[in-house]
Amino acid sequence: MSARSHLLVMKFGGSSMGSAERVKAAGRLTAEQHAKRGVVIVVSAMAQVTDLLLDSMRRAETADEAGLEANLIQLTERHVSCCRELLPPAFQENAMAGVRGLVHEFSRIAKGIMMLGERPPQSVDKALAIGERLSALMIAVYLDAVGIRATAVNAAQIIVTDSVFGNATPLMDETRERAATVLLPLLVDGILPVVTGFNGATLDGRPTTLGRGGSDFSASILAAALDAEELWIWTDVDGIMTGDPKLIPEARVLDVITYNEAAELAYNGAKVLHPRTLAPLIERQIPVWSKNSFAPEKPGTRIVSKIEAAGGPHAVTSMADVALVSIEPTGATPSGAKLMSEALSALDLSNVEVLAITSSSYRQNFCFLVRQSELGRTLEQLEATFALELTHGYMKPIQVDSKVGLIAVVGEGMRGTPGLAGRIFTAISRHRINIIAIAQGSSEITIAIVVHRDGLERAVRAVHDECGLGRSPEAAQAAAPKAPGVQ
Amino acid sequence: MSARSHLLVMKFGGSSMGSAERVKAAGRLTAEQHAKRGVVIVVSAMAQVTDLLLDSMRRAETADEAGLEANLIQLTERHVSCCRELLPPAFQENAMAGVRGLVHEFSRIAKGIMMLGERPPQSVDKALAIGERLSALMIAVYLDAVGIRATAVNAAQIIVTDSVFGNATPLMDETRERAATVLLPLLVDGILPVVTGFNGATLDGRPTTLGRGGSDFSASILAAALDAEELWIWTDVDGIMTGDPKLIPEARVLDVITYNEAAELAYNGAKVLHPRTLAPLIERQIPVWSKNSFAPEKPGTRIVSKIEAAGGPHAVTSMADVALVSIEPTGATPSGAKLMSEALSALDLSNVEVLAITSSSYRQNFCFLVRQSELGRTLEQLEATFALELTHGYMKPIQVDSKVGLIAVVGEGMRGTPGLAGRIFTAISRHRINIIAIAQGSSEITIAIVVHRDGLERAVRAVHDECGLGRSPEAAQAAAPKAPGVQ
Amino acid sequence: MSARSHLLVMKFGGSSMGSAERVKAAGRLTAEQHAKRGVVIVVSAMAQVTDLLLDSMRRAETADEAGLEANLIQLTERHVSCCRELLPPAFQENAMAGVRGLVHEFSRIAKGIMMLGERPPQSVDKALAIGERLSALMIAVYLDAVGIRATAVNAAQIIVTDSVFGNATPLMDETRERAATVLLPLLVDGILPVVTGFNGATLDGRPTTLGRGGSDFSASILAAALDAEELWIWTDVDGIMTGDPKLIPEARVLDVITYNEAAELAYNGAKVLHPRTLAPLIERQIPVWSKNSFAPEKPGTRIVSKIEAAGGPHAVTSMADVALVSIEPTGATPSGAKLMSEALSALDLSNVEVLAITSSSYRQNFCFLVRQSELGRTLEQLEATFALELTHGYMKPIQVDSKVGLIAVVGEGMRGTPGLAGRIFTAISRHRINIIAIAQGSSEITIAIVVHRDGLERAVRAVHDECGLGRSPEAAQAAAPKAPGVQ
Amino acid sequence: MSARSHLLVMKFGGSSMGSAERVKAAGRLTAEQHAKRGVVIVVSAMAQVTDLLLDSMRRAETADEAGLEANLIQLTERHVSCCRELLPPAFQENAMAGVRGLVHEFSRIAKGIMMLGERPPQSVDKALAIGERLSALMIAVYLDAVGIRATAVNAAQIIVTDSVFGNATPLMDETRERAATVLLPLLVDGILPVVTGFNGATLDGRPTTLGRGGSDFSASILAAALDAEELWIWTDVDGIMTGDPKLIPEARVLDVITYNEAAELAYNGAKVLHPRTLAPLIERQIPVWSKNSFAPEKPGTRIVSKIEAAGGPHAVTSMADVALVSIEPTGATPSGAKLMSEALSALDLSNVEVLAITSSSYRQNFCFLVRQSELGRTLEQLEATFALELTHGYMKPIQVDSKVGLIAVVGEGMRGTPGLAGRIFTAISRHRINIIAIAQGSSEITIAIVVHRDGLERAVRAVHDECGLGRSPEAAQAAAPKAPGVQ
Repeated sequence: MSARSHLLVMKFGGSSMGSAERVKAAGRLTAEQHAKRGVVIVVSAMAQVTDLLLDSMRRAETADEAGLEANLIQLTERHVSCCRELLPPAFQENAMAGVRGLVHEFSRIAKGIMMLGERPPQSVDKALAIGERLSALMIAVYLDAVGIRATAVNAAQIIVTDSVFGNATPLMDETRERAATVLLPLLVDGILPVVTGFNGATLDGRPTTLGRGGSDFSASILAAALDAEELWIWTDVDGIMTGDPKLIPEARVLDVITYNEAAELAYNGAKVLHPRTLAPLIERQIPVWSKNSFAPEKPGTRIVSKIEAAGGPHAVTSMADVALVSIEPTGATPSGAKLMSEALSALDLSNVEVLAITSSSYRQNFCFLVRQSELGRTLEQLEATFALELTHGYMKPIQVDSKVGLIAVVGEGMRGTPGLAGRIFTAISRHRINIIAIAQGSSEITIAIVVHRDGLERAVRAVHDECGLGRSPEAAQAAAPKAPGVQ
Repeated sequence: MSARSHLLVMKFGGSSMGSAERVKAAGRLTAEQHAKRGVVIVVSAMAQVTDLLLDSMRRAETADEAGLEANLIQLTERHVSCCRELLPPAFQENAMAGVRGLVHEFSRIAKGIMMLGERPPQSVDKALAIGERLSALMIAVYLDAVGIRATAVNAAQIIVTDSVFGNATPLMDETRERAATVLLPLLVDGILPVVTGFNGATLDGRPTTLGRGGSDFSASILAAALDAEELWIWTDVDGIMTGDPKLIPEARVLDVITYNEAAELAYNGAKVLHPRTLAPLIERQIPVWSKNSFAPEKPGTRIVSKIEAAGGPHAVTSMADVALVSIEPTGATPSGAKLMSEALSALDLSNVEVLAITSSSYRQNFCFLVRQSELGRTLEQLEATFALELTHGYMKPIQVDSKVGLIAVVGEGMRGTPGLAGRIFTAISRHRINIIAIAQGSSEITIAIVVHRDGLERAVRAVHDECGLGRSPEAAQAAAPKAPGVQ
Repeated sequence: MSARSHLLVMKFGGSSMGSAERVKAAGRLTAEQHAKRGVVIVVSAMAQVTDLLLDSMRRAETADEAGLEANLIQLTERHVSCCRELLPPAFQENAMAGVRGLVHEFSRIAKGIMMLGERPPQSVDKALAIGERLSALMIAVYLDAVGIRATAVNAAQIIVTDSVFGNATPLMDETRERAATVLLPLLVDGILPVVTGFNGATLDGRPTTLGRGGSDFSASILAAALDAEELWIWTDVDGIMTGDPKLIPEARVLDVITYNEAAELAYNGAKVLHPRTLAPLIERQIPVWSKNSFAPEKPGTRIVSKIEAAGGPHAVTSMADVALVSIEPTGATPSGAKLMSEALSALDLSNVEVLAITSSSYRQNFCFLVRQSELGRTLEQLEATFALELTHGYMKPIQVDSKVGLIAVVGEGMRGTPGLAGRIFTAISRHRINIIAIAQGSSEITIAIVVHRDGLERAVRAVHDECGLGRSPEAAQAAAPKAPGVQ
Repeated sequence: MSARSHLLVMKFGGSSMGSAERVKAAGRLTAEQHAKRGVVIVVSAMAQVTDLLLDSMRRAETADEAGLEANLIQLTERHVSCCRELLPPAFQENAMAGVRGLVHEFSRIAKGIMMLGERPPQSVDKALAIGERLSALMIAVYLDAVGIRATAVNAAQIIVTDSVFGNATPLMDETRERAATVLLPLLVDGILPVVTGFNGATLDGRPTTLGRGGSDFSASILAAALDAEELWIWTDVDGIMTGDPKLIPEARVLDVITYNEAAELAYNGAKVLHPRTLAPLIERQIPVWSKNSFAPEKPGTRIVSKIEAAGGPHAVTSMADVALVSIEPTGATPSGAKLMSEALSALDLSNVEVLAITSSSYRQNFCFLVRQSELGRTLEQLEATFALELTHGYMKPIQVDSKVGLIAVVGEGMRGTPGLAGRIFTAISRHRINIIAIAQGSSEITIAIVVHRDGLERAVRAVHDECGLGRSPEAAQAAAPKAPGVQ
C-alpha cells in the first residue's frame, strides 16, 4: 500500500472527446487533479472517428476512391475545426500541422489498401491508432495552452503486446519496464503524459490494437504498470448501471460494485468496461471509478474487490448477437464426455470464447453459447474436428440456433436470495417468452438465460423490474413483498 | 416389422420373486402369455437375496466366519422353504438339491474370499449371479410342475460382455449369435427358457455382471437379440410414475412415456428402469410395458418412441447421492476452455458419468455433478490430470459440495410450456430451499436443478405439485391458472 | 483405363521458359504432341522472374522506391524483348499490350505494399502469379502465331484451394468440376489451354499460391482432374538423377523410378519434383515422365507405381537447411511417451513437417529433424506447449543443433540388400564424418542419416559412390565385390 | 556429502541365497562390513522360490490340488532343510516355526485362490512376498546365531507404493519417513535390519510388489531413503559385463560404468539391474557396486555418475521378446504427426513402454518396438484409439512383426567414435542378417538395431566382437586397425 505512487490514471472515452467543448471539459478535469497529484491521461479517438477510419479502409479496399476522399476531408475537417475552437491562435498552427501529418499518414495506408484490394491486419491496426494519436495531440496542445505542460505519447512506445493484430494481449513485464522508462521521466519533470488508448506494439515494434473498446484496457494496463493509486474512467453516463438505459428507462446507477460483478457485466454485453480491463487491476487491488465527464459532480460508480452489500442481483445485461450451438452424439459414440472434451479443445484452439455451456442429459448432448461474430470460426473448427464422426454418422449434424439472445443476471451473493430464480423465470414467462437454455453454476455470480431473440428486450426489462433494480435499494426492499407468493 | 418374431420377453424383478406365492403369480402370468406366443422370461434374484450375498462376501472378507455361516443358512432356508411351499412333493427333491448345489458354489467363493482377505471383482460377479440362478431354477421347476416345459438358462451362456467386472457392457453381435444358438432351439421345441438376469460372461467365459438393477438390462438385451415383439417388465408398482411415491404420496402412474423420457428418469435416479435398458430397444423400436405383477389387470405404462401428448413436464425425479465439483482457473491459466476440455477427457478415461455440467462465467470456472460413488475416482483423476496446475497455482483447489441433491424435471416438449421454469423455481423457493446450480440445454427434455440436500425432498414434492403431476392431465390443466401471476 | 481421356498434360518449368528460343522450343514440343492428342500445358514464370517479383515486393516493403522502379523496368524489358524475338510483328502489339497490363497490375500491388510497409500474404500470392500469367500469355500468342489455336488460362479460375496463402492445398472435387467447366469446352473446340502454374484461388476467389516449385503440383492436379493419359514434366536436366549433379559429378539419370521413391527424394531435398506433386497421380495411376526440354530426344525418367528392378538404393539426396531438436524429460516427468505425444501434437498444429524422428533410450528423450525455415515456429510452439514443464523443471531445456545435414538413401527393396547399412556408414566414416542420428523404419524405403553440416557434401558423395550409383547397374554389380569385407 | 550417513546397504539376490552354504557366505560378507559401519541388508527369496510360489498359485487357480500340495511340501522342505544345515540346534526350533507359519500363510492364500478359481493381484502380491520373508527370517536368525544382533523386517512396513499391484511405484517421501521410523531405531540400537526385497504396501497397508527383479529396486529405494554411503548389489556374476556371457563366451566384466549406461543396458534387456533401480540413486549420487558373492575378492563393477574413459561402446545387450509395430496413414489422413501423437498418447495411457521409435518417411508412417508381453495391450489400445480411422480406411491395418530382436549398443561418448556405425552394421551383415530398423538419437548413448530374430544371437556376438569388447581396452585399441577400411 505504502509503496503505491500517488498517481492517478484517468481515461477519457470518445464521448468525452466529442467536441472542442468536451475536450475543454476534459482539460479542466485533468487540471483539477493535476493540482493534487501526478496524473497520466489516456484518450480515445474523438467520437465516431474510429468508425470513420474503418469505413475509409473499407472504401479503400473496394476501390471507392471518391468515398475515401470525402472521408479524408471529413477527418481533417473534424479535427481542424476542433483545434480552431479549442486553441488560442498561437497554438493552432502547430496543432493543425500535426493533424494534417497524421491524416496524411492515414491516407497513405488507405491508398496502399486500395492498391492491394485487401486490408492486412497490421496496417489496419496502425491506421486505427491514428484516431487516438489525433485526440492525444489536440488535448496535449490544449493543456499546454492552459498552462499545464503536457505531451502526447503513442502507446506503441509503452504497451508491449503479442502479435495478435486486432486483439492483442499485453506482455505486462515488458510494459511495466517501458512505462518506467518512458513515462516516469516525464512525470518527474512535471510533464503530463497524454497516452493514446487502444493501441500498442509488438516487441519488435509492429503496431497492434487491443480490440475495440480497448482504451479502458490501455488505462488499466498503465495503472497497473505504474502502480497507480486509482483509475478513473470518464464516460458519458453517470456510472455502471443496473441495466442498459436504452432498453430500461428506469435503470439506475450503482454506487459500488465488485471487480467480479463488473467483469461479468462486461463479459455478458454491458457496454461500460472492456471485459479484460479489470484483470490487471485485481491483482494490485487498484480501485476504479466510472464517472460521467458531462456531470463530474456526480459520484459515479466505484469498483472494488469486495462490498458489504445486501445480497441479490445487482444488474442485468443482455447480448443479442449470440448463437446457441448444440452437439448430440448418436448411440454409436462411445462417450459424450470425450466429444465435449474435443469440442472444447477445438474452440480453445480457435480462440472462441464460450459464453455459457450446459448439459443435463443421459444422451450426453450439450449446448453452448458463442458470439455471432465467432460462430463461423466455431463451426469451421468443430466440423474439422468431427469430420470423421459427422461423415460416418457417429454424431448428429451440429445444430445452430441464431435467433437467440442472452440475459445475464449478475450479483455477488445471489445464492443467498431464495426465490430469486423463480421470480426471474416467472417474470420472463409472464411476457410469453420461451426460455431455451439456463446455466447457473455453484460458485457463480451470474445466471445465464438464453431466450428467443424476439423476446430479449422485453425479457430484460421484466427481469430488471422483477429484481427491483430500478428503485433505490430501500424502495426495492419495501416493494419486494408485493411479488406474489414469493418469500 | 413383418420380420419380427411373435416373441414376448418378460422380466420378473426381485419383488415379483419375493415369496412362493409371488413365484406362483409369476408362473401364472407366464402361462397366460405362453398360451399365445413364444415367451422368454428373465428373472432377478429373490427380494433381498443380492444384498444377502453382498453382505456375506463382506463378512468373508473381514473373516467374520460366524456371520458368514449364519448368512449361508439363511440363504439356504429362504430358497428351500420357498421350494417346499411352491412345489408338489415330487418336484421338491430335485429343486432342493439344485438349491443346495448353488449355495455350496457360493460358499466356496465366500471361503476363498475369507482366505485371501479381499474380494476380487471376477469372483464377486460369479458369486452374485448365484442369486439369479437360484430363482431361475425354482421358477423353471415350478413351470414344469404346472405343465409348462421350461428350463433355467444361465445368462453367462448367452450375454457376451466386455470384461469390466461389476459394470459390464454387452457385445451385441456376439450376444445375438449366442441367443440364436442357445435359445432358439429351446423355443422351437416348445421349451420356455428362464434366463438369469443381471449376469453375463466375457468372450472367454469369465463371469461378469451388468451392474445392480441390471436384470432390466438383461431382458432388453435379450429382447433386442431375439427381435422380440414386446418386452414386459414386471415390478411391484403400477408403472412408471410421475414421482417417487415414497416422497410424493400423490404421484400417479403414467399411461405412456417416450424412450427418451424414461431414460432421462432412470438416468436421474428413478428406480424403475436401469438407465441403459432402453438403448438396445430404441434402435429396433421394440415397445416396452412396465407392469405390476401384484395387479396384472392394471394397464401399466407403455414406453414408445413418440407420443402425441400435451407438452409440459411428465415426471420429476431426484438423486441424493451426488456431489457438485467446481473447477476454477486462476488468472495465470491461459484458457478455461482448455481446462474444461482436459477435465472432461480425464473423467471420460476414468469412466465417470457426468450427470450435468454448467458454466456461465467470464472467469471460466465450471461445475459438474457426479454420483457420490464415483466422486473418489473423479477427484483422483482430476488431481492427477491437474497435478502441475494445482501444485504451481494455475488453478484453484478443486471444490466439492457433497451436501447437494439433484432434481430432474422431465418431459418432451417442455420448451413449449411458457412459465414453467418460473413456476418450478418459485415453487422450490417457497420452501426456502436454495438453488445451487441449474442446467437446461436447448434440445433437452430435462431441467436439472441442484439444491441443498436438506431441502431435496421438500423441493421434489413442491415441483411435482406445481407441475400438476399428481392429478389427471385434465384436472391439472384446469388447476393451472390458479398459480398466481403465471400464464 | 479405357475411361481415361487421350489427353497429355505437359509442364514447362522456368528454365524451359528461359528465353525466346526456349519458348520456341517449348512451342515445338507442344505442337508435336498436339498433332497426336489433346494437350494442356502448364507453364512456370520465365527463369528468375519469380525471384525478381519477390525482390520487388521486398524493396517495396522497405520503401526502396528506386530499386522497385528498376525492377519494374527489368520485368517489362525481359518480357517485351522476348515478345519481340519470339513473335511475328503482327502478333507483337497485342502481346506487348498484355505484358504491360500485367506489369502494371504488379506495380500497383507493389505500390500498395510500399504504402503499408508490409506484405500481406494474399497480395503476395496475387502478385507472384503474375510471373506465370506473363509466360502463359506469351506462349499462347506464340502458339497462335505458329498456327495452333491456344489461349492463356489463369489457374485461379480452375484450381480451387484452401486459404493458406503461400502454401495452399487444392480441393480436388471443386477443382475437377472447374477443370471440366473451363478446360473441356476449349479442348473440344480444338483450342489448346496454356494454364499458369503455381497459383490458384479460394472458393470465394481470393488468389493463392501452392508454394514455390508448385508448377509441378499444378500440372499434376490438372492431370488428375482431367484424368489425363500421361503427365510430362519438362525441365533442364535429363531426368531424375541418382544424386545432385552439383555435388556428385558422376550422378546419372534413372530410367524408371517408383512414385514412392520419387516422393521420398523430393521430400528429402531433391530438386526435381515438388513433394506433393505425386499424390494426385498415385490414386489414378497416371504415369509421369521427367524430361529435358534442352534434349527432348533423350528418354528421361519414367515414374510409375511399381518396378521389377534389382533391390538396393536407387538414389541419394541431402538437405543442408535442417535442424535437429532434442527433447529430454527429467526424472520428475511421469512419462516420456506423453511428452512425445504432446510435442507431435504441437508440431501438427503449427503445420511443421517432421522429417525424421528417433528415440532409443530409457530416458525417453527423443530427437527429430525439421527444416530450418520451420524451426522458429517449431520452438515457439514447443515452448508454449511445455511452458509449465520447462518453467518448473519437469523437462530439460529444448536443445537445437543447427549445424547438421540430412542424407537420405532411397530405394524400394533396400531391406533385401544385406550389408548395405554397414557399407553406407563405413563409407561416411571413412571421411571422418560423425553420424549424429539415424532413423530407418521397418517398411520404409529411406535410411535417414543426420551428420555434421561440415561433412554433408563429402558424405553424400561417399554414399553415392559406395552404393555404386554412378555407374550402370551392371557395372555397379560387377564392382560390388571390391567393397572389402562385405557380402 | 558430509550429511551422508556412514551406512551401507547391501542386497543379496536369489543366487546369493541359494543354499545354506550361500546364506553362510552372505552372513560372512555382512559381518565383515558390519564391523566397520552401519549395515542394512535386503534379501531376495531363495533361488527358484518365487517361481515355485507362482507355480503354486497357478496350480491353485486351476484346482490342481495335488500339485499344489506337492509344491507346499517342497517349499517347506527347502527352507527347513536349509535351517537345519545353517543353524545351531538351539536356534533351529524358532526358525522352523517361523518357516512353517509363513508357509501356512501362503497355503491359506493358495487355497483361497483355488476356491475362487482366479488370482486377484493383491493376494498374488501378498503371497509372493512370502518368499522374501522366508529368506529374511533365516538370515536374521543366522546372524543372531553368529553373534550379530539382527531382525527380519517386512518391507511392507517401510516401502510405501502406489496401488499398481504387481508393478508398484514407490512414494519416496512417505518411504523416507517410514524408513526413519522403522529402521533408524534399530540401527541406533546396533541391530542389523534384514529387509525383504521386492515388496511394499500402499499407504493404507495393502501389500504390493515392485515387479520381478525388484529386489535391486528395494535396495536402491532404501539406500536413497536412508542417504546411504554406498549400495552393494551381490549377485552370482563378477559384475556388469560387456555382453551376455551365455551368448558371448568372451564377454568380460567392466570396471566402471555410468548410471546412464547401466540403466540403458538394463532397459534393453541386460539381466544385471532392474531398469528402475538407478533412478533413486542418481539424484543423491550414491555409488553402486555390482559384486559377485561367489568371488567377493573380485572388485566387481562400480556404477557412478561420470567416468573419464575412452569413448566407444562399452557393452552390447539384446532382447528377443520384442515386437515391431508399424503404423501407416493412407493418403486420406490429414497428418501423420497427429496420428503418431495419438498413438503415443494411447500407449502412455496403457502403460506400454516404447523401447524405440523411428520414422523417416514422407508417407509419415512410423514404427516402434515394444515388449512382446505388452504387445496385446498395445494393439488393443491402438485399435480402440484408431477404431474410426481403421474402419473407414484412413489408416492401413496396423502391422506387427514379432520375429524380430533388438540389439542395443551402449556407451557414453559413442558419438565421438567415427566409423563405429559402419563397423557395427558391416559386422552384422557379414553374417547375412537383415537390419530391419535403426534408431539412434543425437544425445543418446545407445544405438538400437532391430534385426530378424533368427539372426539375433549371431548379430550380438558379431557386434561384441567388432567393438573389441571381449578384450582389454588396450588390446582392443591395438586390434582396431585390423578392421579393414575403417578408421
